[in-house]
Amino acid sequence: MLQSFGYAAFDPQSPLRPFAFQRREPGPSDVLIDIAYCGVCHSDLHQVRNEWQGTTFPIVPGHEIVGHVVDVGTEAGDFKPGDRVGVGCMVDSCGTCPDCLDHQEQFCNATVFTYNSPDPHTGAMTYGGYSNRIVVDRRFVLRVSDTLALAGVAPLLCAGITTYSPLRHWRVGAGHKVGIVGLGGLGHMGVKFAHAFGAETVLFTTTPEKAADAQRLGAHQAVVSKDPEAMRRHLGSFDFILDTVAAAHDLDAYLSLLKRDGTLCLVGVPERPHPSPNVGNLIFKRRSLVGSLIGGIRETQEMLDFCAEHRIVADIELIAMPDIDTAYRRMLNNDVKYRFVIDMATLPVQ
Amino acid sequence: MLQSFGYAAFDPQSPLRPFAFQRREPGPSDVLIDIAYCGVCHSDLHQVRNEWQGTTFPIVPGHEIVGHVVDVGTEAGDFKPGDRVGVGCMVDSCGTCPDCLDHQEQFCNATVFTYNSPDPHTGAMTYGGYSNRIVVDRRFVLRVSDTLALAGVAPLLCAGITTYSPLRHWRVGAGHKVGIVGLGGLGHMGVKFAHAFGAETVLFTTTPEKAADAQRLGAHQAVVSKDPEAMRRHLGSFDFILDTVAAAHDLDAYLSLLKRDGTLCLVGVPERPHPSPNVGNLIFKRRSLVGSLIGGIRETQEMLDFCAEHRIVADIELIAMPDIDTAYRRMLNNDVKYRFVIDMATLPVQ
Repeated sequence: MLQSFGYAAFDPQSPLRPFAFQRREPGPSDVLIDIAYCGVCHSDLHQVRNEWQGTTFPIVPGHEIVGHVVDVGTEAGDFKPGDRVGVGCMVDSCGTCPDCLDHQEQFCNATVFTYNSPDPHTGAMTYGGYSNRIVVDRRFVLRVSDTLALAGVAPLLCAGITTYSPLRHWRVGAGHKVGIVGLGGLGHMGVKFAHAFGAETVLFTTTPEKAADAQRLGAHQAVVSKDPEAMRRHLGSFDFILDTVAAAHDLDAYLSLLKRDGTLCLVGVPERPHPSPNVGNLIFKRRSLVGSLIGGIRETQEMLDFCAEHRIVADIELIAMPDIDTAYRRMLNNDVKYRFVIDMATLPVQ
Repeated sequence: MLQSFGYAAFDPQSPLRPFAFQRREPGPSDVLIDIAYCGVCHSDLHQVRNEWQGTTFPIVPGHEIVGHVVDVGTEAGDFKPGDRVGVGCMVDSCGTCPDCLDHQEQFCNATVFTYNSPDPHTGAMTYGGYSNRIVVDRRFVLRVSDTLALAGVAPLLCAGITTYSPLRHWRVGAGHKVGIVGLGGLGHMGVKFAHAFGAETVLFTTTPEKAADAQRLGAHQAVVSKDPEAMRRHLGSFDFILDTVAAAHDLDAYLSLLKRDGTLCLVGVPERPHPSPNVGNLIFKRRSLVGSLIGGIRETQEMLDFCAEHRIVADIELIAMPDIDTAYRRMLNNDVKYRFVIDMATLPVQ
């Protein structure tokens, strides 16, 4: 086994602290990766606090991983030591079900998530990217261009693909008016992608201070969603709205902004249900309310290549590993522009 | 003006009774139609009872109209006296908005509905098909094949197109597994169309007695939706489910039956909202919850032609005009197979 180090939560209340653990020795199809940076996703916090139940402690969070290849198995020859690579929310899947064969591994019933997921290799739980290194089957290792700032790439592996995938799946592009609801880790990537795809992009935020920043990120307009008059001006005008807000909120406010045949796409699961949407808002304009989950591995690579071509990375705030609890507190206060990324060089030597 | 006779409700409580009223003289683009039959839609009852508010009394309901052309205006020469024709839920629209130009007149903001709708020609409200004759702009008059039993065609004009349109719009066909929820006027047409389009068709009903009949109508299987074990056997297996039930009910029961990328389509607006659907049921399989409204005029003609080709009509129970209140009572008890149609020959002479 491979001695590894990271930061773990040992219970839902206490701060994270250093944790020594074992990873498997790289097998023939595995890639051993030295982790350089790991993004901090809101789901890390949910699971650390056991808010979705089902957390097994100790938990090592982190599924926005970038780093360099250190070693490769005999059948993983498409990677070589020194390569820049990324790992997202998944590290394995069955490979044979219709979802896997369609390159939609995120919907496979046997997906192994990057952390807090039963690990078929070890029988224990998987440990994520708040750690010094990771062993991943090459099928779930992404290539990262040398031209992008590596720390800013980390959030692409979850926040990036989670917004890229639905915008692509519902074919958002030039000639479309697209809304992005919420300017957090996901929302700011949604704005960048919708802009890059050529859509007229409008950001919806409850925070007036974020409006100016939205335009810097690529939004043509920002609308303060608490302003009924500002909302009214956009009634019936959107082709697609990507709603990144996970807290329960009024979906009708956004459904009514869609054109006929428009689509409101949710990517966040709220703790309490949203108020029940008005079915009339669907029927009387043939609108769609849909959901989307991360994205497949092939599409994640496509997204990373698109980002390299268009020089897109996340806007990040780099933090040291020991400051993770402060970062969590600031995330809860909506105080981050727009993703914390942990510099793994700051992981204390064990 | 044209003296006309029909049955009207004069208030939300009293039985309908005979009513004499005026229709406009046919203009250049109008068609004057002798009404032979008129289907009885649940929305007739809703509006008679003023359950959607906004009913102007007296109201002459009826928007599933079939009959024969009696006279045509100078610019309506594509029709001639004696032609079999139909009129559905709409009798006019602006003709110039994007929805009208896309042949989706049902979404136009200026649609004139067949009854209880402000009538730009007269300044009064429109009067529907529970009457001896009607004057309609030729753009909203449909051709009916001579080969179909005319009374059974009437319900195609609302129940038919309301189920045909979403099945076509979402491209339901061979190789698909399709569910139809509810076996009423709409549901029984949904079963017939899904079957005719080549889909594996499953009917969901709360009424075990309807199961056998569903197979006669074209369903490959019927599932009693109150039986959790029967429902469980279909988890994750449907491409498309058309939900015709207008009462508030559990949408998650049907969302969870959809495959990845499956679609649940609602065509009924419940009086009270459905319980809020679980957003996870959308996100974790990229499913869609959508709505659909009737269908456009061009598509209604396409549907009528399809029905002629495939010898499809509604299963009806013919009633006399004076029996309309009994029919309403039986509809409320779910006691009709599957649509009442009024024989207008029974309209008392005024």
